[in-house]
Formats: sequence, C-alpha cells, structure tokens
Amino acid sequence: MAVHRFEPSVWHNVLATRQAALSVADGDTVITPTLDAAGFDKDGVNRASGPNPMNGPIFVAGAEPGDALCVEIVRMTPIRDRGWTRAALAANVVDPERVRDLPPRDRADWIIDLANHTVRLEHTVPGLEQLVLPLEPMIGCFGVAPGLGQAFSTATSAETGGNMDYRGFGPGAKVWFPVVVPGALLFLGDCHAVQGDGEIVGTGVETAFEVEVRLSVVKGQAQVWPRGETATAILTVGNARPLEQALQHATTAMLDWLAADYGLGAVAASHLLGQVVRYDIGNVYDPAYTVVCRVDKKWLPARSA
Amino acid sequence: MAVHRFEPSVWHNVLATRQAALSVADGDTVITPTLDAAGFDKDGVNRASGPNPMNGPIFVAGAEPGDALCVEIVRMTPIRDRGWTRAALAANVVDPERVRDLPPRDRADWIIDLANHTVRLEHTVPGLEQLVLPLEPMIGCFGVAPGLGQAFSTATSAETGGNMDYRGFGPGAKVWFPVVVPGALLFLGDCHAVQGDGEIVGTGVETAFEVEVRLSVVKGQAQVWPRGETATAILTVGNARPLEQALQHATTAMLDWLAADYGLGAVAASHLLGQVVRYDIGNVYDPAYTVVCRVDKKWLPARSA
Amino acid sequence: MAVHRFEPSVWHNVLATRQAALSVADGDTVITPTLDAAGFDKDGVNRASGPNPMNGPIFVAGAEPGDALCVEIVRMTPIRDRGWTRAALAANVVDPERVRDLPPRDRADWIIDLANHTVRLEHTVPGLEQLVLPLEPMIGCFGVAPGLGQAFSTATSAETGGNMDYRGFGPGAKVWFPVVVPGALLFLGDCHAVQGDGEIVGTGVETAFEVEVRLSVVKGQAQVWPRGETATAILTVGNARPLEQALQHATTAMLDWLAADYGLGAVAASHLLGQVVRYDIGNVYDPAYTVVCRVDKKWLPARSA
Amino acid sequence: MAVHRFEPSVWHNVLATRQAALSVADGDTVITPTLDAAGFDKDGVNRASGPNPMNGPIFVAGAEPGDALCVEIVRMTPIRDRGWTRAALAANVVDPERVRDLPPRDRADWIIDLANHTVRLEHTVPGLEQLVLPLEPMIGCFGVAPGLGQAFSTATSAETGGNMDYRGFGPGAKVWFPVVVPGALLFLGDCHAVQGDGEIVGTGVETAFEVEVRLSVVKGQAQVWPRGETATAILTVGNARPLEQALQHATTAMLDWLAADYGLGAVAASHLLGQVVRYDIGNVYDPAYTVVCRVDKKWLPARSA
Repeated sequence: MAVHRFEPSVWHNVLATRQAALSVADGDTVITPTLDAAGFDKDGVNRASGPNPMNGPIFVAGAEPGDALCVEIVRMTPIRDRGWTRAALAANVVDPERVRDLPPRDRADWIIDLANHTVRLEHTVPGLEQLVLPLEPMIGCFGVAPGLGQAFSTATSAETGGNMDYRGFGPGAKVWFPVVVPGALLFLGDCHAVQGDGEIVGTGVETAFEVEVRLSVVKGQAQVWPRGETATAILTVGNARPLEQALQHATTAMLDWLAADYGLGAVAASHLLGQVVRYDIGNVYDPAYTVVCRVDKKWLPARSA
Repeated sequence: MAVHRFEPSVWHNVLATRQAALSVADGDTVITPTLDAAGFDKDGVNRASGPNPMNGPIFVAGAEPGDALCVEIVRMTPIRDRGWTRAALAANVVDPERVRDLPPRDRADWIIDLANHTVRLEHTVPGLEQLVLPLEPMIGCFGVAPGLGQAFSTATSAETGGNMDYRGFGPGAKVWFPVVVPGALLFLGDCHAVQGDGEIVGTGVETAFEVEVRLSVVKGQAQVWPRGETATAILTVGNARPLEQALQHATTAMLDWLAADYGLGAVAASHLLGQVVRYDIGNVYDPAYTVVCRVDKKWLPARSA
Repeated sequence: MAVHRFEPSVWHNVLATRQAALSVADGDTVITPTLDAAGFDKDGVNRASGPNPMNGPIFVAGAEPGDALCVEIVRMTPIRDRGWTRAALAANVVDPERVRDLPPRDRADWIIDLANHTVRLEHTVPGLEQLVLPLEPMIGCFGVAPGLGQAFSTATSAETGGNMDYRGFGPGAKVWFPVVVPGALLFLGDCHAVQGDGEIVGTGVETAFEVEVRLSVVKGQAQVWPRGETATAILTVGNARPLEQALQHATTAMLDWLAADYGLGAVAASHLLGQVVRYDIGNVYDPAYTVVCRVDKKWLPARSA
Repeated sequence: MAVHRFEPSVWHNVLATRQAALSVADGDTVITPTLDAAGFDKDGVNRASGPNPMNGPIFVAGAEPGDALCVEIVRMTPIRDRGWTRAALAANVVDPERVRDLPPRDRADWIIDLANHTVRLEHTVPGLEQLVLPLEPMIGCFGVAPGLGQAFSTATSAETGGNMDYRGFGPGAKVWFPVVVPGALLFLGDCHAVQGDGEIVGTGVETAFEVEVRLSVVKGQAQVWPRGETATAILTVGNARPLEQALQHATTAMLDWLAADYGLGAVAASHLLGQVVRYDIGNVYDPAYTVVCRVDKKWLPARSA
C-alpha cells in the first residue's frame, strides 16, 4: 500500500479514456496538488486552461468494468492564500424577470487564512465586513472514465462522476464510482475552500489544494451512479437536468443500494426513505445538476452478509 | 393577549376567503385540535373529507393587505396513538422506467408512543424491525387566503402558503405569510408526527395534533412568499413546479429579505448566499413542490433599523 | 335550440362556482361580446380589471359531474380595430443569462383591419415594415368551474380549462371540458386576433370579439382534461408546469380517449402515436403551460359503437 | 464538386474528433448507405453495435472553427423492406403513476413498401388494420465533432447536433452545424422511414437508407446551435433537458439569427416571433430533448447584405 506523490505536467478538461499519468495498486494512496478551476497553481501561475483542469488519469490495478472504485478523501490542504468566486448569482437561480437586476458576474478574490483555517473576502462589501467563514474543503470535480468512447467535459457530470460540486465530498468522505473501463482512470481537481449548496454563484472559493486520497477496488459492486459515505450517513448521487431527474436518479440508486447491501425490499425502503431521507443539492449551476439522497446510518439495518 | 381554544365543527379543503370561524386580536394565542390528512380526529372518527381538511379560517384583527402574519408554532402535541403513511414511493421520485417495479401505494399504520415521543410501524417489515423514530412534529399545510377571489386546494400551495410539507415548520419555528385579504384568514391542519425530506411516499406519519400558535401582525412587511425563522436560521419558501422554479422563487425572496432587513446589496447577497446558503426540499410530491432557501443567522449582519 | 345574446355587466377573474349569469338548454347557442385581456371593451372603455376578465358563468341545463360540455366555436368576429401586445419576449423563453439583453416589456398597439381580416403594427419597427398578418381568431381563456370549492385565476389553467392560449381554439373547433359541478358553469374571454405558438411575448394581439358558441352536453363522457376536434384532427390538452408534465397529461389523456372511443389497446395506441402524433405548445408563459397532443383523423379507426 | 460513394467499414457511437474516413472538398456530394439504429445493414446483417452507429467522420476541406457546415439532404432512399419500432410509449411521456399500465417495450417489425413508398406493421394489432403510413424519411442522428476533446454519445445531442430525431430533417432540408474542429468532421446515420413528434416510443421506424448529402462551408457564420431551412421555413434547434431549456436555446438562437442575417433588433424580433413562431418537438425521449423554433419565410424581411 504505497504512497505516490503525483505532480502532473498535463491536465485534462474531459473525463475520458486517456493515457494513464500514474498507475497504482489497489489500496495505494496518492498525494497530488490540484490547480484551481481556471488552471492556476499554488503560486498563481497559469498551468492549464479551464474549465476545471484535472489531474490524472490514475490507473488503479485490478479495477474492471462491473467493479467500483473507492476514493477515500484522506486530507485536503489548501496551498494558496487566495481564492476567487463570481460576484453575482447565476441567472438560472432567480426568477427569470429578476435576472435584469443581477450585478455583473465579476470576479472577487478571497483570502484563505492557512493558519486559522478561515476564508474571507479580500475587499469586503457593505454588510459583510464581519463575514469570516470556516475553511470547509471539498473536491468539486472528480470521477472516472465513461464507456463507449465518450469524453464528457469537466464542466458537467454524469454516471461516472465529474463536476458534481457537492459540499459533502470533503476530508473523511468515501466515494465509490462505477468502473466502466479497465483501471477505472480517476481524474480529480477543482477544489473549493468553501461553497454553499447549489454553487449558485457558479463557483465555490476556487483555489489550489494538496489532496490525499486512498484508492481501492470493490470487486463486483455494481452501481450506476456515484455513492458516498460520511461519518454519519450513506448517500447516492444523481447528475442530470432538471433537478427532478437528478433526484429520481439518486433515489433510484438508493433503492438499489438498500436492496443489495441491506436486504430492504421496495416496501421497507419506501417506509425508511419516506420518513428519514434527506436531499442535498450539490449544484444547480453546471450543465448537469447534482442531487444527493442521504440516509443517516443510525436508521439502517445491519448490512447483509 | 388572550388564549383561544378553537374546536372547529366545519373544515375546509381550500385556502380562500371564507367566513371566519374565529376572530382574534394581534398577539393572541390559539390552541386547536387538528384532523389528520384524511379527516380523522383524535378518536379515529371521520369528521371531514380530504384532502387535508383545515381548521379555520382565523381572522386576525389589524391584518391588512401589505402586512405579514406571523405564526409562531408554540407547541404541537400528538393526540392519537396511531398515524398512517403510504407504503410506496411516489411514482415521480424514481426513474420513470422503474415505476413498473414500485409496490402498490397501500396504507400502513404507525404507532405513536405518546409517552416516549417515538414513532414506529405497527406491523413491521423485514429489515425495519429496529426502526424507532423520534417524534418530530410539523405542520404540513397552513397559510392564509389568496387574493382576487382565488381558492386553492389544500393539496397544493402557493404564495400564501398551503400544503408545503416542510419538516422545518415545527415547534419553535416562526412563519410569516403575506397578508392579501383583511384579517389574513389563517387555515391550518395536516400535521405529521415525522416526515422525510420531499414527502416522497406522499405522506408523513399522518395523525391528529393539538396545535398551539401565537398570531401577530407585522405592519407593512411586504413579502411575496412565506418566510420562516428557527432558532438558528432564517428561511424563505418557494412553492411551484418544477423544483427549479420553486428554488428560483425562494432564492429571489431571500434576496428581497436580505435587502430589506439586512441592507445587503445584490453583490453582497450573492457573496453571502453563494458560500453559505442551504436548500431544503419541502415536498416533491404535491402539485406545487416546495423548496426552502436557508441562511444560518450567524452569517447575517445586524438587522437594519 | 335557442340563440341567446349575452351582454355581461359583471366579469370574473377566476374559474369557480359563481352565480350563473345565463342559463341555457343543451344545444343552445350563445352570442356574447368579450373584453380584451386587460378588461377593455369594443369601444376601448375599461369595464373590468385583469387578468383576463371572463364572461359568465353560463349554466347549461342537464350538465352533471361525469359529463362533458361541448363548446363549438361557431364564429369569432373582432369588434374593435385596435389590439395590443407586449414588445419583448418573456424572460423564461430565452437563455437565462440573455435576459439581461431583453428590451422592456412595453405595450405595442396593432391595427386590426376588419374589412380585410388582417393585423399589423400601428407603429412599425425597422425590418417589419411589410408585416401584415392574417386575422386568426382564437379564444385564449375558457373553461368550466373546478370542483371542491376551488377558484383558479384566469391567468392560469387546470383540468377544467382556463388560460390555455392555444391557437387551435378558433372558429370551427369543438372543445369538450370535463363537467365537475352541476350546469358546468362555462366562462370565456381573452380572445386574440392572432398569436404565435407559446404566447412567448405574454400576449397574442389582445382585442374584443363577438363570440358565438354552441353548447351541448355529452352525458357520461368521462375525461380528466380538455379535448378538442378540428376539421382534420382530434386533440387533448395538458395544463401544467413544466412542459414535460403538460405533455405527460396530454399524452395520457389521448391514451384514454383512444381506448374509450376507438377501442385501441395500449400497444395499438403506442404504435399509432409513436409514428403519427403531433405536439403543439399552447403557451409557455402562463403559470401553467399548455401542451396539445394531436392526431389526424385520417389515421384513426372507426369509433367504437 | 465531386460525388463520393462512401461505404464505411467502421462506425462510431460518439460524435468526436476521430480519424476522418473520407475527405471531401467544399461543395462535394456524398452518397452513403446507413445502418439502422441497432447496427443492421440493408441485408439485415449486424455490422456495428448501437446506439446509432454513425458513418463518418467526413472531413470537409476549408471548414474551420467559426464557420458553419451546411448539410443539404438531397435524397434518402430506403434500402431495406423491413423496419422496427418499440411497441410501448416511453415511460417519461405519460403520467408517472400510469407507467404501471404500459405494455412491455417489445420490438415490432414494419414493412416498408419500396415501390409504393408506404410503411405498415408487419403483424397488425386490433384497430390498426388499415394503418398505412406514407414514407417520410428523416435523419435521426447527424452532426459534427464537438470541441475540447469531448466525445458525446450518439444516444444524445448537443450544440453540434447528434441524435435530434427531428422529422423536419428529411430530403430538401438544409442544416447548418457550427464548426468547432478543423474539417468539421461530419457523422450521420440512424435514419427513420417515418416518426411522430417526440419519438415517444423511443424509435421511429428504424431502417437502412442510402443517403445523399451535399456539403458546403459557410465561412464565418457564427452560430451556437444547429440551424435549418426547408422549402417554407427557417428553423433553429435547441438540444437539452428539460424541454424548457431546449426551447430557450432554440429561441435564443433564432434571435441571434434574425439579428445577424435579417437585421431585426430585439423588439422587432419579439414582435415577429410573438405572433408567428412555431415550435416543434424533435424528441422527448433521448437524454437531451430537442425543440425546434420555426418561422415561415413569408414573414421574414429581406436578408441583410
């Protein structure tokens, strides 16, 4: 179970079958510095073009179609003291006639206090003088190569992950992606220092991180959509437009998981979800929106053998 | 500031301008027993027909169009030891082709343990033998009369509230509705012992409650959509289909609130919401869906004078 | 089969159970002058407030819940030489970020040439100097009272009709509405001299008409949504947001009709619709959108006995 | 202006930058036999796997990013006397609860009468004994390579075309695609003998055709979405989910076209579209839906110089 330091020299704007930049064994750990969404590195140097340039792909030995790749997010350390956002809500999250009133989508810079783990605007605006947010790192875009020769943009997401922009994908989370091509071919990047639900300004606080992930293969774990686990909950992800379809995918994926691993039939799963389910909105900005279906572990029966 | 005990003998299936069943003063408290969603009372006697028969309307003296009515949910005490749900997910929350696999939408009964404040299935199903949920009361349907002579069904919701099925509307919450007709004309009912996000089986655990609410008028508080406040957060509500439109309404309403009461311009509000907003899905089942836009109070500046 | 001349003195902004303004027998004809969408009559006098003030309701003897009311549009004669529209696309029909570029939604006046049956801008704009459109009259808003005491705004539509803004509802068309209350209680108004698909500026050319309709009852014709028939086609109407849901309602209603009257099973109906269906977009502007599912009569089998 | 006979030996399931199978000059004609959607050729031999295997790509000399590629559909000759469809409506086009009643999505075979240009079921079903449809050929899937290294599935569509399944793309139509990569790289296939609006059984009558297209480059014609022209109309295409977004893209693209080539400002374009626009639904089945915005040429001013 080796630890690999991976310094990319090439980045990718699609999730696709591409020449592996690194090959690792099942269970290995990878430590890698990511660029921000626009391709700027820890020193503020532009290394790649957007959108969301990805490190990778990483070939994981033993991962075959029909398996799942587990990405455990061990650590995310910000490596730059500046991040940036857009200064206006996205046009699609307000009433259409009110778009006329939105300010320009200018760029705003934020200070990331690396010692105190906080984030604040570099040039404050009236009313937000006191706003100091805790650092809450998350990976905005990661996933594995799709099948059939497809290559989808890192601006969007699909069954194999991508630009999901879900706050829950931070340190401590495990995420499983369906493996569609040999070696899985993991891509990752686009990390945020903090982000609200929905990524409704079109960005989190975009910056560079050093990310540590542990990669392992779950043989024969059939799944259509990404799954995740945090300290307290299990979750499934649907990526699609409109929100209804993303929610349908996530809910259907949770039914499948509850059946496969927890032995819950359709009636039991309906009762459970009906009374305890939580939905999170990953993003409502990217071409495909992201909805998460989440169930606290405390309500789950023991996993089936 | 009187306390009124209100025992209805007639219930309503629309929110509309109807003869007031009770008139109260600004600041008064009302204690009233509600029927379940199908019209059954605390003794299991069918008193009214569905959907969601409402107590009311309650005329609040001094409430005029352009004001807001504040409904503070002081207490909700379950008054029946049985509730019921549907035993299958709603067809619109799973992938369309998977609807074929859903079980029938049978009724299931639940035991409400009034002493221990818990809820469990009366006849358990495999895998849920240990499922005992905490009682988490909420008002499924409440709101005030709409204008222009409209009367909308208690199956749905609109600008003046209605069947929002939001988990956050439980004891301790304050909710403000826009007053459109003199006296506001408050309706309420359809309380749930517990419910997951989205009301995705089409019900919470439906039962009868004694509800205590304190009603007060906020003169000149212009708002288009319901607003709320909990111990930790402020929130706005959008009721519409699809989810995108509900989210747009809620977000636009939050922009309006942040501007009016907290003095935040569009850029400041964008920065704040972009990094700290939370979205909740009230229901994704009723004719109008409900999305809540929520901001923790700790991030807000002081209210304007 | 009498002919009634109906000159309203009161108009309505909801479809609801209201005191009948006129009672007619099954098969009678009604001739009535309508106001424009803003409540102005043939002389340009403001007689009622908007939205879409309705003539009616008309009680049709013998119409009972479970029947259908047939409204045959016999004639529509414009009775004013001026109409008006909005001068900008509605914000919800362009890409959200492009709303910023839309012009103001000013009012524009049009000349209706009553002799030549044409319509043109009163003050032309560059590029449209030659634009002379044929008069293509249609009823924007008509329908019958809903049940359960509901009263829905004439800005929107529902199962019993309303503000559907469908171009196909002009002279020669027959439209059937589901009867929900005794006498059906027909409302009508909001006629347009011409209108594109979708009513994407939020109006057709709004003006006053004299409308002649023949009203008849079809006993026991169960239907959930409006149905129509033109010289060449049968059609069903779905009113809802989003467009997908309107389309689902219309398609499901066509399945029901093909089964009930043409004896087509689900496979036959799928084959037929799959290869010959046409969809029209009534409006994509009102609170509920309207989608029409249309089948040319030449493809239909003989009606069942 | 050469004529090329192109007999592919390899087919593609993505639109992407791939090795050109044929290079042609600006203005050349290509005649090529297509496979059906499942990869079967004129003799019923399976030559490629689905979905929608494409002939191509065809490199068109002189086509550069920023240009448009014009595909004139000169002729489509069916080259097999059998086609097939699915025998049930897609689950997403009926009311969700009614999906339970849909028949299985079996395959049904159709006879294509090559002499009489008609299409009928091979094994008829009750009620459709007399159903004989005219042959109305169309190209279901065609388009050019997207940029940024993307490769999108021929099951779906995007800015550069793809699986749009629009009835209007038959002989006589011209279609312009935005060129994003050098040579444009045209792909085409998935032809239908006939199809209803929306492709609501998930197929048209799928069969093999010989297709003749003339390809030409329009230098500097900037466009985001596909455009088309028939004998009577110009049209723009939006490909996205939900239908609203597809309609927004198509409408915005028409605004751009009317401004660029017909000199119409936003007010003029609003007036014109508001009263004369027609919307067609290409498909409401594929991952991206297709909506067409169409304007009859008779309403257009002369093209700008």
